[in-house]
Amino acid sequence: MVKTPADRWSPRDPDDDAPRLECGVFGVFDVEDASAVTALGLHALQHRGQEACGIASFDGNGFHTERHMGYVGDAFAGGDLTTRLPGAFAIGHTRYSTAGGSVIRNVQPMFADLDTGGIALAHNGNLTNFLTLRQQLVAEGRIFQSTSDSEVILHLIARSRRPRLVDRFIDALREIEGGYALVAITNKKLIGVRDPLGIRPLVLGDLDGHPVLASETCALDMIGARFVRDIEHGEMVIIDHDGIQSLRPFPAARARPCIFEYVYFARPDSVVNGKSIYEVRKRMGRRLAMETPANVDVVVPVPDSGVPAALGFAQEAGLPFEMGIIRNHYVGRTFIQPTQGARETGVRMKLSPNRAVLAGKKVMLIDDSIVRGTNSIRVVRMVREAGAAEVHLRSASPPIQWPDFYGIDMPDRENLLAAQHSVEDIARILNVDSMGFLSVDGLYWAMEAGARDPANPQFTDHYFTGDYPTRLLDREIAEGRNAVAERQLSFLVDA
Amino acid sequence: MVKTPADRWSPRDPDDDAPRLECGVFGVFDVEDASAVTALGLHALQHRGQEACGIASFDGNGFHTERHMGYVGDAFAGGDLTTRLPGAFAIGHTRYSTAGGSVIRNVQPMFADLDTGGIALAHNGNLTNFLTLRQQLVAEGRIFQSTSDSEVILHLIARSRRPRLVDRFIDALREIEGGYALVAITNKKLIGVRDPLGIRPLVLGDLDGHPVLASETCALDMIGARFVRDIEHGEMVIIDHDGIQSLRPFPAARARPCIFEYVYFARPDSVVNGKSIYEVRKRMGRRLAMETPANVDVVVPVPDSGVPAALGFAQEAGLPFEMGIIRNHYVGRTFIQPTQGARETGVRMKLSPNRAVLAGKKVMLIDDSIVRGTNSIRVVRMVREAGAAEVHLRSASPPIQWPDFYGIDMPDRENLLAAQHSVEDIARILNVDSMGFLSVDGLYWAMEAGARDPANPQFTDHYFTGDYPTRLLDREIAEGRNAVAERQLSFLVDA
Amino acid sequence: MVKTPADRWSPRDPDDDAPRLECGVFGVFDVEDASAVTALGLHALQHRGQEACGIASFDGNGFHTERHMGYVGDAFAGGDLTTRLPGAFAIGHTRYSTAGGSVIRNVQPMFADLDTGGIALAHNGNLTNFLTLRQQLVAEGRIFQSTSDSEVILHLIARSRRPRLVDRFIDALREIEGGYALVAITNKKLIGVRDPLGIRPLVLGDLDGHPVLASETCALDMIGARFVRDIEHGEMVIIDHDGIQSLRPFPAARARPCIFEYVYFARPDSVVNGKSIYEVRKRMGRRLAMETPANVDVVVPVPDSGVPAALGFAQEAGLPFEMGIIRNHYVGRTFIQPTQGARETGVRMKLSPNRAVLAGKKVMLIDDSIVRGTNSIRVVRMVREAGAAEVHLRSASPPIQWPDFYGIDMPDRENLLAAQHSVEDIARILNVDSMGFLSVDGLYWAMEAGARDPANPQFTDHYFTGDYPTRLLDREIAEGRNAVAERQLSFLVDA
Amino acid sequence: MVKTPADRWSPRDPDDDAPRLECGVFGVFDVEDASAVTALGLHALQHRGQEACGIASFDGNGFHTERHMGYVGDAFAGGDLTTRLPGAFAIGHTRYSTAGGSVIRNVQPMFADLDTGGIALAHNGNLTNFLTLRQQLVAEGRIFQSTSDSEVILHLIARSRRPRLVDRFIDALREIEGGYALVAITNKKLIGVRDPLGIRPLVLGDLDGHPVLASETCALDMIGARFVRDIEHGEMVIIDHDGIQSLRPFPAARARPCIFEYVYFARPDSVVNGKSIYEVRKRMGRRLAMETPANVDVVVPVPDSGVPAALGFAQEAGLPFEMGIIRNHYVGRTFIQPTQGARETGVRMKLSPNRAVLAGKKVMLIDDSIVRGTNSIRVVRMVREAGAAEVHLRSASPPIQWPDFYGIDMPDRENLLAAQHSVEDIARILNVDSMGFLSVDGLYWAMEAGARDPANPQFTDHYFTGDYPTRLLDREIAEGRNAVAERQLSFLVDA
Repeated sequence: MVKTPADRWSPRDPDDDAPRLECGVFGVFDVEDASAVTALGLHALQHRGQEACGIASFDGNGFHTERHMGYVGDAFAGGDLTTRLPGAFAIGHTRYSTAGGSVIRNVQPMFADLDTGGIALAHNGNLTNFLTLRQQLVAEGRIFQSTSDSEVILHLIARSRRPRLVDRFIDALREIEGGYALVAITNKKLIGVRDPLGIRPLVLGDLDGHPVLASETCALDMIGARFVRDIEHGEMVIIDHDGIQSLRPFPAARARPCIFEYVYFARPDSVVNGKSIYEVRKRMGRRLAMETPANVDVVVPVPDSGVPAALGFAQEAGLPFEMGIIRNHYVGRTFIQPTQGARETGVRMKLSPNRAVLAGKKVMLIDDSIVRGTNSIRVVRMVREAGAAEVHLRSASPPIQWPDFYGIDMPDRENLLAAQHSVEDIARILNVDSMGFLSVDGLYWAMEAGARDPANPQFTDHYFTGDYPTRLLDREIAEGRNAVAERQLSFLVDA
Repeated sequence: MVKTPADRWSPRDPDDDAPRLECGVFGVFDVEDASAVTALGLHALQHRGQEACGIASFDGNGFHTERHMGYVGDAFAGGDLTTRLPGAFAIGHTRYSTAGGSVIRNVQPMFADLDTGGIALAHNGNLTNFLTLRQQLVAEGRIFQSTSDSEVILHLIARSRRPRLVDRFIDALREIEGGYALVAITNKKLIGVRDPLGIRPLVLGDLDGHPVLASETCALDMIGARFVRDIEHGEMVIIDHDGIQSLRPFPAARARPCIFEYVYFARPDSVVNGKSIYEVRKRMGRRLAMETPANVDVVVPVPDSGVPAALGFAQEAGLPFEMGIIRNHYVGRTFIQPTQGARETGVRMKLSPNRAVLAGKKVMLIDDSIVRGTNSIRVVRMVREAGAAEVHLRSASPPIQWPDFYGIDMPDRENLLAAQHSVEDIARILNVDSMGFLSVDGLYWAMEAGARDPANPQFTDHYFTGDYPTRLLDREIAEGRNAVAERQLSFLVDA
Repeated sequence: MVKTPADRWSPRDPDDDAPRLECGVFGVFDVEDASAVTALGLHALQHRGQEACGIASFDGNGFHTERHMGYVGDAFAGGDLTTRLPGAFAIGHTRYSTAGGSVIRNVQPMFADLDTGGIALAHNGNLTNFLTLRQQLVAEGRIFQSTSDSEVILHLIARSRRPRLVDRFIDALREIEGGYALVAITNKKLIGVRDPLGIRPLVLGDLDGHPVLASETCALDMIGARFVRDIEHGEMVIIDHDGIQSLRPFPAARARPCIFEYVYFARPDSVVNGKSIYEVRKRMGRRLAMETPANVDVVVPVPDSGVPAALGFAQEAGLPFEMGIIRNHYVGRTFIQPTQGARETGVRMKLSPNRAVLAGKKVMLIDDSIVRGTNSIRVVRMVREAGAAEVHLRSASPPIQWPDFYGIDMPDRENLLAAQHSVEDIARILNVDSMGFLSVDGLYWAMEAGARDPANPQFTDHYFTGDYPTRLLDREIAEGRNAVAERQLSFLVDA
Repeated sequence: MVKTPADRWSPRDPDDDAPRLECGVFGVFDVEDASAVTALGLHALQHRGQEACGIASFDGNGFHTERHMGYVGDAFAGGDLTTRLPGAFAIGHTRYSTAGGSVIRNVQPMFADLDTGGIALAHNGNLTNFLTLRQQLVAEGRIFQSTSDSEVILHLIARSRRPRLVDRFIDALREIEGGYALVAITNKKLIGVRDPLGIRPLVLGDLDGHPVLASETCALDMIGARFVRDIEHGEMVIIDHDGIQSLRPFPAARARPCIFEYVYFARPDSVVNGKSIYEVRKRMGRRLAMETPANVDVVVPVPDSGVPAALGFAQEAGLPFEMGIIRNHYVGRTFIQPTQGARETGVRMKLSPNRAVLAGKKVMLIDDSIVRGTNSIRVVRMVREAGAAEVHLRSASPPIQWPDFYGIDMPDRENLLAAQHSVEDIARILNVDSMGFLSVDGLYWAMEAGARDPANPQFTDHYFTGDYPTRLLDREIAEGRNAVAERQLSFLVDA
C-alpha cells in the first residue's frame, strides 16, 4: 500500500500563526543529473512550501515525474534519484497550498500529453480568475482531475489551436490573471514566465554555462550556480539548445513586486529584485527604532524571522541585542499533550525562553509581522513567565489588514488582528507594555524606493493598504453571484 | 515521502507464465459503509488483478478516492476505511494492466469534474480503438494525464454536448469499441455497462434490497449478497433512488462472451453467464480424457487452476486423482538466489513436488492451458526429478495461437508455444511422454453450447481460432501507418 | 522510527481455530550466501510459524542477526540480504509463540557473547521446566531480557564451568526437559539437537556436500538439497570443518515422536521420521471411511489441510471427491466489517462455498481435526447456506481432549470441544447430520505402527490420550505452589 | 518487516566536525501519562543525541519499553503513546553512541528481570573500566546481548547478593569508574545517580509536586516543571512514594564537572551547575575579544553554537554583530551529489553565505571550538567565495588536544588539529588572516571560577590540558596487553 499522506506530514499546527506562501519553483536545462540538481535547489527553497514537493524530468525519450507529500529531504534524498528521474531537463516544485486541497493529485509539477508532445508545468502564485476559467473549460467539455491552477493553464495551452507550443503557451498566458511565476519543460525547452507585474519572483542563474531558473537566489547558491539576473515582470524566457530567448507576451506595465517577500517569505541570504533581503529587514528594524522607540534594556528577536530587524533596531537604538528566545531545531510531529504540567507546550516545542537574558529586564521583542496574534500572545506570556520586568513588542511591518489573492495564505479580515483592532487594543490583547508597527512609509524607506506613489505604487502592498494591483475576477463574481462558482468543484480527496 | 510503488509490489515474475486479466470491477448503491462493502467485494475479485486497486465513494457532498499499488488486503483493510472513504455509493477496481504502464496515475477508478458534477469510472477490458480516440481527443486540445482507457471514456462523456449525463454517457459508449464492463458513480447514480457482445462479465446482485454490481458472483458471496442476474450483453443499467433502469444503447447483436473466463480467469466458485465455472472445467477434463487418453497410474493437477479439470479427467478415466504437486501459500517478494544449490528456485517458491505420489509412477499432469510453455518445462522437470517414471501433460483448453485485444495480457504470436509448434514438437520441447490439448469442439461441448457455429460463434474464442469478434481499429491503423499511433504517448512514470 | 510490529502483522484471527506450532528451525554450514539459503529454507517452513522470523550468520569475524515480526518473504526477500547478513554459517527460525509474549525481544535466534566466543541459538518446542530453571538462574544473579526458552538455554551454557563449548552445551541439555529441536552456530560449528524422545522433528540434508539442518524435508527440497537422514531422538550433531560428529548426551530411551506433526503441522510433501505426511493423511482418511461410513453423495475437504484425508476417504468409500469449498489465496489484514450484509465474513475471507458441488447434495466434510469447533460451526453453516441437503462431518484424527506442553498452542481443556462433549453432543453443536472421529487405533494404523503399546506408546499422543511422555515440572510446581512461578516474570512489551 | 534502521536515520555526515555527546536522560515519578511527559522531555534533550531514543514505563503491573533509531519526534510523537507505554513511572534516553555500535540492541533504556523484580536503566556518560568489568562478568558465565555500558551495570546489580535492590545498586556503583549520570525505574522507585566527580550533569525538577530527573534544565522548561537543584557529584537519589532520599555511596571528593558542557553541548537556555550556558558563552566571547583582538569590520558567528560567543565578542570589541552565515533549518538525508556544479554541497546543505554582510568586509568568524578543522576549512572558503576581504577565525575555547573517555565522541590525538599543529600552522591550514583560541585561564574566567587550580582543577578539562580526572583502566590494560581486551567482543549487528 502506498502510505496515506496523512501518516507522513503534519497538518498545519494551529498555534502556527505565520502567513504561508504556496510555492517555490526551480528548473534546469541540459545538465547532467538534472533531477539531483533540482532536488538540491528545491531543498534550498523548502521555506517557501513544506507540504509537498515534486520533480519532473525529461530524458530525451519520455517524461518522469514523482510527487510526494512532505519534505524534499525525505522525498528526493537517497541513492537512486537519477535512476528514478533520469534526464538533463528537470523542473521542481515545493508547495504549500492555497488553491486546491492538500492532496497528492494537486501536487505539482502537473503533466499533460498534448498533440505537440508532453509538457510538465509548475507554478508559484495564484490565478485570480481561476474559477471563472475552470468553469468555462468544464462547460466546453474538458475534464479536470485536480483543483490546481496548473491544470487550468495546461488546458488553456491545449485549447489553443496555434501550431507552435510557444504560441499556445502565450495564448494561455493572455487568459490568466493574478500573480505567478511559472516553469515548464517540454521535450525541447525549458520555459519560465513571470506575471505582468512581477508579483512573484523568479531569477535566472548559470550553472557552468547552463541556464537555471529559481524562485530565489539561495537556490542558485546551493547548487553552485551564478546569479545572472531577475526574470523581468511580464517576461517569458524560452530556453533551448539555441540559447535563451526573451519574449514579452503582455502589454507593457510597471513592475509591482510583492513587498511581503521582503517582510517574511524570502530567505535572508537571498537577493530579490536586486535587494538583499537581510539588508532590507535590518533597515526595517532601524526605521522601527526611529518610529517607535522605547525605554528598554535589551532587544530580543522572535527567532528566526525577527533576527535581522532586531539587529537593525538594536544598532539604531544603541541597545544590546540578545538571543532571549531559543529556537528548537528538532521539530517532530504532534506529541501527546500530557495531562500534567503541560502549559503552552505548542509554543515551547519550537521556542524556549532564555531566562538569563530575560529575567528582570525590560525586553523589546521584535517580530516580522502580526497576523492573527495567537503566536504573539504565547510568546509574550512565555517571556513574562521567564521573569521579564516589561515586555514591549514591535512588528517590523505595518498592520496587516487585508487578505491576499496572489499566493499567500492569510486569514480573512475578521481574523486579522490589526484589521479589527487599534494599536492600543492590540497592546492590551497581547498583554504588552507597548506595541508598535512600522509605517507604510517606513517600509518603503527600508526598500530604498522613495515615498510610496499612491497613483502607481512601486510594490504590491495591499496587505497593508487594501490597494490590490489587479482586478479579482473570481471574487467579484462570487460576491455578485452568491458564490455559485465555488460550488462547482467536487472536492476530491485522494491519497 | 509516499513510498515509491516499486517498494510495495513485485513486478511480474518472469517465471510466471499464466495469462493475465486486467481487472475486476465492483459497485454498490445506497448501502451503509459502501467503501467497506466494496473492499470486501474487491478482495473476492483479487484473482482478476493483483497489481493495484482503487475505491471511489460519494458521501452526498463530495467524492473520495484512494488508489494504491498492491493488494486490496494491504490497501483497504484496517480500521479507518469508512472515515477515509465515507458515503453510501462506491465503486472499486482491482487491476492488472494491459493498456497503460504500471503507474499509480493509471490506477482506477478515474475521476473527473464535469459541468454536470463529478463522475468516477472503472472498467475491466480493453478498447480496440483507444489510440485512435485518444489521438483525436488530443488533436481537439484535450489533455491527458494517464494512459488509461478510462480517461478516454471520461473525455468522451465530457465532450458530448447533450444536457443529461446519461445521454452523454451513451454518446461516449457509441464511440468506443472492444470488450469491457464498466461501473461508474455520479452524485446520484450507480451505472453499469457491458459491451455489445458481452465479452467481459458483469453481474447484478442484491444486498438486503440494495443493488450491487460485480465482475463475478464470488464477490456477491463474499459480501452476503444474492445473485439476481447477469447484466446482458450491450446492456446499460442506471441505478438511482427510483430503482434500476435498463437501457440498450447499442444495435442488437448476439452475445459472444469470452470463453477464457471459463478456462482460466474466473474463480471456480463463480457462476458466469449462468454456468458454474467449476462444472465447466470438470467437463473440460472429462472430455480431455475422452479425446486424449493415456496409460498412466495417477492424475495430478498443476495447482490450483488445473484441479477441476484433473478431477474430471480422473473421474472419466477411472484413474486415481492425487495432489502430486503442493502449492506454497506463502508468496514473498523475490528472494536472493543463492549461488549454491539453487536450481529452479523460481518454480519451487510456489510449487513443490510430493514425492510420495510421484516416485515411480506414470503421471498425467493436467494444466488449464499452455501459453509460453516456460512454466510447463519447469513443472515437468520438477516432477521428473521427484522420480516419476513417465510424465504426460494435458492442456484442458485448445492450443493458444492468437493474442487477445480485449483485456487479457498474452504474449505475441511469436511467443505463444502452440502458435509456433506442432503438438509433437511441444511434447519434445516440454520433455513429456505424451502431450494433448482439448479440441475447440471439446471446449464447446464442455460449455454445453452445442457445436461451434462458424458463422456466428457462440463465444469469443480467437485465442484458439483467430476469429476476432470485433474489428481491431488501432491495430489496423498501426499496421497501415507504421505504428505512428504508438509514438504519440509520452510514457509517464509517476509515483 | 522503527515501525511498531503491530503495523506489520496480524494478531491471531479469533475465527482461526487451528492449533499452532511454535517454530521451524534451519541451519547451514560452510555454504556461500548462507543467509540467502537460510531465507529460502525458512520460507519453506513458514507454515510452522507465521508470526516472526530471524536469521543469524557468522562471517568469520563476527555475528550478524536480524529478527522481524511477520513473514520471511517480507523480512528476508529483496536485494541486500547477503550484505546485511554475510557469512557461510547461518541459522534461522520462524515462529509462532507459546512461551514468551509476542514481542521482538523474544524472536529467535537469540545471541550471547560467552568467554568462549559468541553463540546464536534457535529452538522449536517447549521446555517443561522453563520457569523453574529461569527462577533458579535469576536467583543466582543472572539477568534476563526476554521470556524465551532460548535465553534460558544460553544461560545454562554460560553457567557451565567446563572449558569446551560442546561440553557446556551438553551440561545445559542435561538440565532442560521437554520437547525440542535446537540449532546453534558458534564461530566454528553448526550444532543440532533433538530431545531425548524425538518429540519435535529435525532432519539432516546435504547441499552439494555441505550439511543442512531443517525441521522438515520440504526445506531441503526448496533449496535443492538431498535428504540424508532424520536426526535421531536424543542425538546431538556437531558439524565443523572436520565433518559431522554424533553425540548421545542423554540416557538411552525409545523414540516417541509427536503424532500431531502427521495430523496437522507438517507440510504434505514432507517426509517425517521416514513417513510421507501425505500418505499417512490419506490412510487416516481411508480408515475413517472404514470406521465411520455414511450415505452421502460427495466427499468435500475443508481446504487445505483436509485434502489428503478426503482423497483417502473418497477412494476407500468409492465416492466422488470434489472441491466443494474454495480457498481464497489472498489473505489480508482484518477488514472493516460493514454493517450491512456481512454475515460470517471471517470465514468467507478464507473459504467460499462452491454451490455447483454442494447444492442439493448429501455432503461429507473432512477436516484434519476439531479443536474448539468454532471454525467447524461456520463452515457447516456456509455449506448448508449453499444448499447442501445433508452435511456430515468427519475429523481425520481422534477427539482432542488434552492440552500440549511441547510447543503446540492449544486451548485449555475447558475450551477443547471434545474434552467437554460427547460425539452426539458435538454433532448437535456443529449442526451436522452425522459426526465421526478417527479412533486412536485407527490413527496408529494409518501410521503403520502396529497397535498402540500402552506401556510404551510409539508416539507422543497425549492430545488424544492424556498420556504425557515426560514429567511437567513447571505445571506441577504451579499447581502445588498456587502459580507463584508465573508471577516472577515482569512481562515486557518492547517494539 | 521491521524496517532496518539504515533506512531511518543518517550515519554521521563526514563533513560534520562537531564533537558528540552520547546521551540525554530523563525520568519522572508518579505522574499521569508518564511516557508522554518523558517524550517531551527527551525532545528538549534531542541535541544531546540524535541517533536513537527509548522510553521504559512501569504501569503497576509490568514494564513496557520501546527503543527506536532516529528522532524522538518521529519515534514518540503521535496518538497512541500512552497506550503503548502506559504507567506513572517512566525513564527515557536519547543517544549518540560511544561505547557500543549503532544497533538497536544497544539502544537504552536496558531492561532486566531480577529476582527482586524488573529494572530499567539508562545512562549518559562512559565507564572507563567497561571492558575490564565485562570480561570479568563473562568469565563468570554471564551472557551479554549488547555492548552497552548499561548492560554491565545491570549485571553488577544482579550479581550482588544483598537483599535490597538499593544496596545491590550501590554495590554495582562501587565497581564502575568513569563519568556518568544514571536514571532507573523499578516497580517502586525512580533512582538517579551522578558520578563521584559530577562529570556528567543531572538535575532535579518538580512537576506539580512530582519529582523529575533530567540531564538539563531545558527539559524541565519544556514540560513546565520547576528547577529544584542539581543532583550533586557522587549523589544517589531514591524517589518513591515516601519522598526523595539522598545517599552518598562514594568516598567524599571535590566536584569536577565537564567544562565542555559549557563550551558546546548544553543548550544555551539551560542552567548547568548553577550557571547559565548562554552567559558563560557570552563571557567566553568577551574574553576572546580581550585576548585576541583584530582589526575587522564585522563579527559573524558560525551558527548556531557560535552565536552567544560572537555576541560577547562584538559587545566587548564594539563591533557590529551580523548573521553573515545563514543556517538552513531543513536537514534531509544525504542527497545525491550531482556531477555538475556541486562544490562543497555538504556544508551548503546546512549553512549558506549572506553575501550582503560578507562582501568586501573584514570578517571575524566566531566558532565554539575547533576539532578536526574540516568544517572550518569549508566555512572559511564559503565566506571567502562570498567576497570577504579578510577572514579571521576565533575559537571560543582553548585548543583541543586530548581525547575524551567520559562520553564525548572525539577523534584520536592524530586527528585533533590543535594537537598536531601550532596556531600559526592552523591559520595557514584553515586559510585565515588570523587565528585565535581562548586561553584555559580565559575559559576559567568565563566560568567565574577563579584561576585554574592545577592541584585540584575545578573542572574536567583534559581536552585542553591532558589532565584526566580519573584513572583510565581499560585504556591502561589495552596499552599494556596489546589490545587483547578489545578483541573479546563479537561485534553484533542486529536490526
